[in-house]
Amino acid sequence: MTSVAPAGASSYPAATVGPVLVVGAGLLGASVGMALRGAGVDVLLDDVSAMTARLARDLGAGRLVTSDDVPRLVVVAAPPDATAEVVARCLEQYPDAVVTDVASVKGTVLQGLRAAGADLTRYVGSHPMAGSERSGPTAARPDLFTGRPWVVVPTEVSRPDTLLAIRTLATDVGAVPALLDADAHDAAVALVSHVPQLAASLVAARLQEAPTEALELAGQGLRDTTRIAAGDPKLWTGILSANAAAVVPVLEALRGDLDRVVAALSKAARDGADGDAPGAGVLGTVAGAIAAGNAGVARIPGKHGGARTDYDVVTVVVPDQPGELARLLGDMGAAGINLEDLVIDHAPRRRVGLAAISVLRGVGPALEAALTARGWRVAG
Amino acid sequence: MTSVAPAGASSYPAATVGPVLVVGAGLLGASVGMALRGAGVDVLLDDVSAMTARLARDLGAGRLVTSDDVPRLVVVAAPPDATAEVVARCLEQYPDAVVTDVASVKGTVLQGLRAAGADLTRYVGSHPMAGSERSGPTAARPDLFTGRPWVVVPTEVSRPDTLLAIRTLATDVGAVPALLDADAHDAAVALVSHVPQLAASLVAARLQEAPTEALELAGQGLRDTTRIAAGDPKLWTGILSANAAAVVPVLEALRGDLDRVVAALSKAARDGADGDAPGAGVLGTVAGAIAAGNAGVARIPGKHGGARTDYDVVTVVVPDQPGELARLLGDMGAAGINLEDLVIDHAPRRRVGLAAISVLRGVGPALEAALTARGWRVAG
Repeated sequence: MTSVAPAGASSYPAATVGPVLVVGAGLLGASVGMALRGAGVDVLLDDVSAMTARLARDLGAGRLVTSDDVPRLVVVAAPPDATAEVVARCLEQYPDAVVTDVASVKGTVLQGLRAAGADLTRYVGSHPMAGSERSGPTAARPDLFTGRPWVVVPTEVSRPDTLLAIRTLATDVGAVPALLDADAHDAAVALVSHVPQLAASLVAARLQEAPTEALELAGQGLRDTTRIAAGDPKLWTGILSANAAAVVPVLEALRGDLDRVVAALSKAARDGADGDAPGAGVLGTVAGAIAAGNAGVARIPGKHGGARTDYDVVTVVVPDQPGELARLLGDMGAAGINLEDLVIDHAPRRRVGLAAISVLRGVGPALEAALTARGWRVAG
Repeated sequence: MTSVAPAGASSYPAATVGPVLVVGAGLLGASVGMALRGAGVDVLLDDVSAMTARLARDLGAGRLVTSDDVPRLVVVAAPPDATAEVVARCLEQYPDAVVTDVASVKGTVLQGLRAAGADLTRYVGSHPMAGSERSGPTAARPDLFTGRPWVVVPTEVSRPDTLLAIRTLATDVGAVPALLDADAHDAAVALVSHVPQLAASLVAARLQEAPTEALELAGQGLRDTTRIAAGDPKLWTGILSANAAAVVPVLEALRGDLDRVVAALSKAARDGADGDAPGAGVLGTVAGAIAAGNAGVARIPGKHGGARTDYDVVTVVVPDQPGELARLLGDMGAAGINLEDLVIDHAPRRRVGLAAISVLRGVGPALEAALTARGWRVAG
């Protein structure tokens, strides 16, 4: 890696054998190129836009491909709806090369390749779970994939050496490979990414007409649930429509739950208007929906992929001045207590922030004592 | 305030004139008591559970009320469904006192008071936007309300001195008062709190049956959108059913949007199965939903209640060792760059975390240069 690493961080030579051709020199393609170049691999660049290819080259993602080059591995990082066509063309053009793509939906790519009669023995799909708010080669980074899952998607006809070449690619760029077939991948990302994205958008959309004074009551909960609603409409329309077959059943199940809650709350509203307390059926339906959410969120893996840990959370008042948060965390380190998570909540109209510090269960009281002794104000 | 404050933090004497009676000595009631006691106000405690009242007294929230006491201000912090009854009783029992409550839904309380024929000239409702994962007086803190919005909810018959007494109470406990009528309050919290809570629960509920390998692909987006789904079913059932009249119209509008997206994606799935590209109507509907989310989320106030700022985000690889994050923020402070926000993303199955540091727009490149020079690995 050419990037600067803190002392003690390890760095390996690449196991991938070049030349590697990257087709599509945008954020993902150029980042793959930079990561491989940094490990000494010969990287060739191609893009429908010659300017994009040259820009990626100038940024250190590789050299421009020529008609004499014979790549051993091809990484297709084209727009999702063009991916199958480009992969099929590369499989034909380079009959000895292994080919992968980085599209975020895998079933539609495979469907396109089968329709085109492509040689699937030399193809294994990829989905690196990494991205950026920005796009294009200027947003690319050699460490874009560091520590991120990279889903490796073989078919029943993929040759073993093809599969291993793609696993090696994932490892060489610093990602963590995860093996799934196309249907399992598409169902997984529908659940953990596509439906949450859409739900965040639907909740955020309700804020369009909200009075300003309502928005001023917004807390960290609203900010967290709607943060990803800022995602790019063009990108997400492409993803959601390409994965529609996997997304629709999840949305329909969600809508079924929503219908039951709306019916129960409508009855509660009518009971309330009549001056009655809500009936037991109403409360049971709503409590069931919240409890189901409890059970679901508890299954999300916590730190380092292990079981979710319940942390002690200590909230500290932090004056909004440079260095105050560093001083807080320094005092925490001096007390020998390790930070597990940190959420910063800025108070509206106040020059003060609240830092919610998560530490291992049972360590909270010691942290409170240590911080209070050092002059910090611990809030509720 | 009795709590320890960092040097330079200001502290005022209380403007509230006691005795203040707190009815219900749980998290909120005991916290009000502690905050007022810390400012020298005489606080009286009452609770249906004598043990809870004594516990709150022992924790410094006030003294036990006696039949000789004549409070000037009463704060009712009873369970939401008992609030109207307790407020009505206090208005009768203390004919010279001003009374408020802290229930998180205001319309139903007012409805109950009107039905009881209570003297509303001496009543103004409150909703302090503060809480804790824990409950009861042991979770109470004198700084629970620091910097948090405190909604002050008068009616058309509230006397001006009643309104000012409650605004003063909010300010004395460190909160930021916000004036809304009951309907506007209930509509606001439906939008910014109750509907987001339910949406998070519905998305998280879908994860109950998800395969483990799907959950291992979970990223920060899923964690953020579902974090509040861990909320208490009993608490939220009470809130949602009490505010059903305001929540249902928002949920119905959301369901309308959802129906349109499901219909469009169902068509996309059928087109895809036929090998066709999705039609323009499909893409427009989905893109419209995501764009509406963009517009909504952009309206959420950012830091300190000002306009939302687009920050530069620099992501840094942080080894999972005590003190590393403090060292990172220390290096940042040494470079004279102020942190605006920080999100920590733990990589699955890797002993390394990614810290996404937000700084003011334009400052990102300088931060990257400063951190790289100090040996940090800046990721994408």
